[in-house]
Amino acid sequence: MVLTSKKVVALAGGVGGAKLVYGLSKVLPFDQLAIVGNVADDFGLYGLHISPDLDTVMYTLAGVANPATGWGLAGDSWQMLDMLSRYGEDAWFRLGDRDLATHLLRSHWLAEGITLTEITARLMRGLGSPFRLLPVTDDPLSTIVDTVEHGALDFQEYFVRHRWLPTVKKVWFRGAEQARMTGAVAEALRTADLIIFCPSNPVLSIQPVLAVPGVREAIERRRGICIAVSPFVGGKAVKGPASKMMPELGLEITPRGLLQYYAGLLDGLVIDESDQQERPVEGAAVLLTKTLMQTDEDKIRLADVILEWSGSIRG
Amino acid sequence: MVLTSKKVVALAGGVGGAKLVYGLSKVLPFDQLAIVGNVADDFGLYGLHISPDLDTVMYTLAGVANPATGWGLAGDSWQMLDMLSRYGEDAWFRLGDRDLATHLLRSHWLAEGITLTEITARLMRGLGSPFRLLPVTDDPLSTIVDTVEHGALDFQEYFVRHRWLPTVKKVWFRGAEQARMTGAVAEALRTADLIIFCPSNPVLSIQPVLAVPGVREAIERRRGICIAVSPFVGGKAVKGPASKMMPELGLEITPRGLLQYYAGLLDGLVIDESDQQERPVEGAAVLLTKTLMQTDEDKIRLADVILEWSGSIRG
Repeated sequence: MVLTSKKVVALAGGVGGAKLVYGLSKVLPFDQLAIVGNVADDFGLYGLHISPDLDTVMYTLAGVANPATGWGLAGDSWQMLDMLSRYGEDAWFRLGDRDLATHLLRSHWLAEGITLTEITARLMRGLGSPFRLLPVTDDPLSTIVDTVEHGALDFQEYFVRHRWLPTVKKVWFRGAEQARMTGAVAEALRTADLIIFCPSNPVLSIQPVLAVPGVREAIERRRGICIAVSPFVGGKAVKGPASKMMPELGLEITPRGLLQYYAGLLDGLVIDESDQQERPVEGAAVLLTKTLMQTDEDKIRLADVILEWSGSIRG
Repeated sequence: MVLTSKKVVALAGGVGGAKLVYGLSKVLPFDQLAIVGNVADDFGLYGLHISPDLDTVMYTLAGVANPATGWGLAGDSWQMLDMLSRYGEDAWFRLGDRDLATHLLRSHWLAEGITLTEITARLMRGLGSPFRLLPVTDDPLSTIVDTVEHGALDFQEYFVRHRWLPTVKKVWFRGAEQARMTGAVAEALRTADLIIFCPSNPVLSIQPVLAVPGVREAIERRRGICIAVSPFVGGKAVKGPASKMMPELGLEITPRGLLQYYAGLLDGLVIDESDQQERPVEGAAVLLTKTLMQTDEDKIRLADVILEWSGSIRG
């Protein structure tokens, strides 16, 4: 543990980001780690407010995530969904029975006027995790994926229902202009010694966090350093649509492509050994290491290596 | 089958009523039986609209009710509830995982402005039951139980949370003045050849149906006959609080007491053999038979006997 007295803020999406967050949570004291979570893939289903990325990170931090999928709860069952099908409903989203308790409570509390920030804190306490998981905003924010085949799709339609098969023309975030960064996120970013963009989908998980007014500016004014961990291994996304959709959007899936995408924000970039390029990357320090996280040991090792290395670079 | 061309309307509450409804559904064609359901014990929980009595009758008619309890779904599990407890919630109401699908769909459709009548029809179709289960009203209606120990309690608080231990001073129905009988219920009552008050709690299950403006008048203007099946066996309720709360309210748990309670509405009364009294009951025909329904055969036999006997009496 290198940064024992330093404050770390991790921007994380879903499964990929949660893996690194898990590692960080095992090597940092709880009061030195805050996670800023993506809420732009939140959606409504049967009146439930579902926050897939927050839940994935929350379940991971609480040690109750399904190890096979990375999302959902370990040992969950699907009785409710089976019954919904019996009623003739198209059960396209995998709502686990235990998982439902989270959605029910969140939806109920939101209807009572409690903020998503406070609700997330309550749920984390309920699960016994001491870490701070901070939704980037308490305001509505929705990823919209403009596709060639089906026009504009809500994120879950694109991601789950159409299994990211459509060709992406543009990604934008409905509500981004009006959304306000929460006070807790502003404070976390203002006092951070190290900001980490986790190996999440840059367009779908990190960008919607940066799209909330004030976040990008807060990172630009950082007092510490900011690094990104590439979500690519061997020129491909470990999981999910990044390596399909980014080229569709004209974005390069290379270390240089990532630096361009995060232009002006990064002091350092962590890339997988398999992605070492012939020409050095300019404009940021680079850490070449094994970034694929298959076991818990992988996650902890990567977190450790990143924290040690980040202490050696200056912004 | 005696009344093959006659229309039967059954007023039913929860478990006791559902037993007779099951029997009726086995001896009557689906287009000759309509069930008018109590909605005054409906309540909200975590934003879900729960209709315990409608669900009990619905699950019974669809052949998916839990045979051990009479309510809930056969083979249901409790994962969601277990997780709610983990979040520190007081899981006082038994929400099964499969049962949740019903509550989620109903709540979602209500929020979309669909009536409870139409929703109940959809759910019944989804479960493959052809019978008509008609909520007495689509308007809000709530049983309030005034108690000595705890003052006014919502029905579920009294019934589930306090396990009907408090002493009842008065029962009334919030919203009854404003509630409107549905068109489907009005039509069913207007054309009924036989109206049956099922062996449900008179105060908690039948009275809230009668309390909706127009229902009592429609029964008084009946073209056919109206009978009640006593919920008492050997001077006690088979199940639930009737034989405790009715004396608390100054009501007599006897055939005569029931006739007084339903004054002016009954042409006949079905009572258990064990409740035969020394003096004959005046003002209504009486059928003495075994009313305890333990097996499906008991339910079908009682339905058959009632239908045959009711053909022999005149209003």
